Amino acid sequence: MNQLAASRRDFATLIVTCPDQPGLVSLITALIARNKGNIISLDQYTTDPRGGDFFQRVVFHREGLSAALPEIEADLAATLGPHEIDYRLVEGSALKRMAVLASKSDHCLLDLLWRHQRGELPVTIPLVISNHSDLAEEVRRFGIPFFHVPSQGEDKSEAEARILELLDGNVDFVVLARYMQILSESFIDEAEVPIINIHHSFLPAFIGAAPYRKAKERGVKLIGATAHYVTKDLDEGPIIEQDVTRVNHTMTAADMQTRGANVERAVLSRAVRLHAEDRVIRHGNQTIVFT
Amino acid sequence: MNQLAASRRDFATLIVTCPDQPGLVSLITALIARNKGNIISLDQYTTDPRGGDFFQRVVFHREGLSAALPEIEADLAATLGPHEIDYRLVEGSALKRMAVLASKSDHCLLDLLWRHQRGELPVTIPLVISNHSDLAEEVRRFGIPFFHVPSQGEDKSEAEARILELLDGNVDFVVLARYMQILSESFIDEAEVPIINIHHSFLPAFIGAAPYRKAKERGVKLIGATAHYVTKDLDEGPIIEQDVTRVNHTMTAADMQTRGANVERAVLSRAVRLHAEDRVIRHGNQTIVFT
Amino acid sequence: MNQLAASRRDFATLIVTCPDQPGLVSLITALIARNKGNIISLDQYTTDPRGGDFFQRVVFHREGLSAALPEIEADLAATLGPHEIDYRLVEGSALKRMAVLASKSDHCLLDLLWRHQRGELPVTIPLVISNHSDLAEEVRRFGIPFFHVPSQGEDKSEAEARILELLDGNVDFVVLARYMQILSESFIDEAEVPIINIHHSFLPAFIGAAPYRKAKERGVKLIGATAHYVTKDLDEGPIIEQDVTRVNHTMTAADMQTRGANVERAVLSRAVRLHAEDRVIRHGNQTIVFT
Amino acid sequence: MNQLAASRRDFATLIVTCPDQPGLVSLITALIARNKGNIISLDQYTTDPRGGDFFQRVVFHREGLSAALPEIEADLAATLGPHEIDYRLVEGSALKRMAVLASKSDHCLLDLLWRHQRGELPVTIPLVISNHSDLAEEVRRFGIPFFHVPSQGEDKSEAEARILELLDGNVDFVVLARYMQILSESFIDEAEVPIINIHHSFLPAFIGAAPYRKAKERGVKLIGATAHYVTKDLDEGPIIEQDVTRVNHTMTAADMQTRGANVERAVLSRAVRLHAEDRVIRHGNQTIVFT
Repeated sequence: MNQLAASRRDFATLIVTCPDQPGLVSLITALIARNKGNIISLDQYTTDPRGGDFFQRVVFHREGLSAALPEIEADLAATLGPHEIDYRLVEGSALKRMAVLASKSDHCLLDLLWRHQRGELPVTIPLVISNHSDLAEEVRRFGIPFFHVPSQGEDKSEAEARILELLDGNVDFVVLARYMQILSESFIDEAEVPIINIHHSFLPAFIGAAPYRKAKERGVKLIGATAHYVTKDLDEGPIIEQDVTRVNHTMTAADMQTRGANVERAVLSRAVRLHAEDRVIRHGNQTIVFT
Repeated sequence: MNQLAASRRDFATLIVTCPDQPGLVSLITALIARNKGNIISLDQYTTDPRGGDFFQRVVFHREGLSAALPEIEADLAATLGPHEIDYRLVEGSALKRMAVLASKSDHCLLDLLWRHQRGELPVTIPLVISNHSDLAEEVRRFGIPFFHVPSQGEDKSEAEARILELLDGNVDFVVLARYMQILSESFIDEAEVPIINIHHSFLPAFIGAAPYRKAKERGVKLIGATAHYVTKDLDEGPIIEQDVTRVNHTMTAADMQTRGANVERAVLSRAVRLHAEDRVIRHGNQTIVFT
Repeated sequence: MNQLAASRRDFATLIVTCPDQPGLVSLITALIARNKGNIISLDQYTTDPRGGDFFQRVVFHREGLSAALPEIEADLAATLGPHEIDYRLVEGSALKRMAVLASKSDHCLLDLLWRHQRGELPVTIPLVISNHSDLAEEVRRFGIPFFHVPSQGEDKSEAEARILELLDGNVDFVVLARYMQILSESFIDEAEVPIINIHHSFLPAFIGAAPYRKAKERGVKLIGATAHYVTKDLDEGPIIEQDVTRVNHTMTAADMQTRGANVERAVLSRAVRLHAEDRVIRHGNQTIVFT
Repeated sequence: MNQLAASRRDFATLIVTCPDQPGLVSLITALIARNKGNIISLDQYTTDPRGGDFFQRVVFHREGLSAALPEIEADLAATLGPHEIDYRLVEGSALKRMAVLASKSDHCLLDLLWRHQRGELPVTIPLVISNHSDLAEEVRRFGIPFFHVPSQGEDKSEAEARILELLDGNVDFVVLARYMQILSESFIDEAEVPIINIHHSFLPAFIGAAPYRKAKERGVKLIGATAHYVTKDLDEGPIIEQDVTRVNHTMTAADMQTRGANVERAVLSRAVRLHAEDRVIRHGNQTIVFT
């Protein structure tokens, strides 16, 4: 158990989602109390107090958590099961395993590796995969395995199969850190783990190639980035985090791209931290983010 | 009951503070459940899971709240009393009554009156008091009583006595909207309601007169504002909200003051809203702010 | 001459736009020097040092400017004329006359009137026009004439003709402060003065009715506002200023609208100040903004 | 000549400072024009149009700049010399040589090395010096020499002498990237190059040890960072850049320190870029920053 995981020992996070009904918070907090848990933080949200959906994130501390887990799980099943409540109990020391897919651009990838090294992200990184070999050395410097899976020609199925093989059973979520390949629907299905993507955003939006050139031509004063979960609707999945930075007429499209890259890496790192701490709950195409 | 108050009918906010102990959240949420309340939002914070202080804010909805209040209050007393838990139950429709004290400068005062008129602040404003008569007409345009209490000479006790008389029983909190008189310790004691002040802030700090001139001389790149509760330590009370704005070498001290005024009014309005919605809990010289 | 205009006496702003050519800055600054002007600020921008477009804004001080103006104008015509340089000389004391068009919503309108009253905007406001009568009293309180020009039925031509009549010769630019009528192309042509509009902006964009509801459904984390010049392409004219504010899942579409209104009024006020100080130069569908 | 330097070939920056006098801009721009320079950007600022100080930064393009430099320098001397004007002409391709001094903390150092590698900072980095050996490997990975100069005991003079020896003639400016040793006055004198420091900033300020603990105790809502030139008045030298980030009651002093570190590295990198591009002019204890 590494240092970060150790510091999170005896802490657990419980995520609950269900149709809202009176007494829910009481039901859950009583369960934690009788299992000797002490609630550290509790966030909850109801889309509508009359017949809406209910979302809750509770972090609690419990001496000897690991040994008590089977008992707590059994109590959860007995207590919440009959009410058709979805729940998920996550041990704090069980850091999520994150795969990063990248291409040639290193700004988002390196920011993640660096923050991970500094202990700012509660994850492990079992592997980095790229369709180019350029970043191999930089990744391995951090002591992280790097796999080169080239993606040639129109048919991506072979490359995707190879990536799925590498991910299979090894990771809890995937981050596309400026990975410049479009993933197929079947890949998204078969990966069976959440996939987080980062893309640039503009007011107004510029669809297609060369967005920074279009933004320059339109004379925008702000450029931004959006981190979201990947769904079959390209770039339209549930938004986790967004931010913008100011630009002006003196900047070239290339200057804007540099500025944009700085926003992208900041937004992606924040989104990864939020996801890794189970602070993001998907709700249709929206997210509940307990910051 | 005005429109804003009506929209908050059947909603209540419960504020709880006490030494942390296992089972607290469960105890409180069970109480709300058995009184037929449906929890809309719940925020809680513990300074330390082992032996720290516990703070909670719960908003719940209860059909026919007004009629049920005595019963709920009795249950609270019976349930929480034995545990030496401090609590406060606030009806949503009971808008807090806010007095504003101002001098000649109108930017903070008008921002409050305007946002109040637009329904952005859940307060009523029974009166505005000033040591100058300049703003009388502007205040009365909003349909709000204005009282001129001049403050002449060294001895402020007469003016303070007159102000206390006007406030007595009529208000739940006081806002100093650039009120340029220093209040005596006895005034703060006798007012018996929270007093919120706004003052400019700088990196570094500039004590005493002409802060904007000093900030200009120091060549700062940011100027700010701090809203805080008034205590006997002038400008050192618990901070509610802060913000900054960017300045540069081309700005005169007067330009900086204009920019500063814009930050002041934004910060003060946010602080007033936070306080009026019972989102700020004082904890020694700090605040817990449930945003 | 009011106080603000008086403080700007003896200051002039010269705006120059032309194809870039060596020696331009020298030509212009020599002209100002020989006319006894002292340059206070000089901003310039070239789209491309080889064959691009050149834009310059010079503010200079000249004792007795008013009397010297004809002479300076003659020198400008003689010196710049032969080079096919576009230029515009603006006396500082000649505050631009601004008409405001509004509907029922008052947040943008009142922010402009208030900042004007405080001396933050170097304009005069000869009149406010609305297609509703609701805001008449609020506007007249500021000592500003209010005209109600109802806009009934499909045919707007009569209302537009009436507005053009009111504007004719009386204003230097028009601000649409949440004016909820679409202006016809012929109105834009015949107004013959710049028209500034404010509209909400989102990442991504939401076209059509109920944008805040759509933004809520999409789960965005930022909402914004864009101030731009009006052209025949609705909402697509040159952008002057933009900004955003953060939102989250707890906010209803109505909460987002309140937040959005605060960004709108801040962005519109900044855009009006930039325009009124001749800091914005249009360049095709872009703007050069000398801040 | 590396790629960044090559892209800046034929560009030069002229910095001028002197008492304001009519005709200055004209004098300088005429000189550039007759030397076949084409002005790319020009910023200027006057502290007071009547008898103030004048500051100007002009970037111009000149085909074959390198060969023409002696001629331009001679013209500058002949033209500006008699007017007692201070000036400095800097070739774009002559990247400034930056030494970085660090201790154990790597966040500021790595951000600089990384941005340098990405071509975001127009500098070369001939060496990194630290009073600890911890960061040697990380620095050398970037292909940059690392020198370990331990600083033991009360007497720092030996260590400082060793550092001066390493710097002598090799660097144009020094950056203290969380270098935790206080430099002596004599070091500052003998270094003979500008020294840039980064320190945390708070509203209000917290002097001495453990500032984040004090900030936590005070319950501040913003923490910040200030980059400034080092003078004999510790942390009181001319400010180059500042920024803040938002914190709240849930954050520990350690969390605040992590947030603070992110602001520090962002502010320091911006300050370094501004200095490296000759955008900062010192004026007493203030700075003119042409952004």
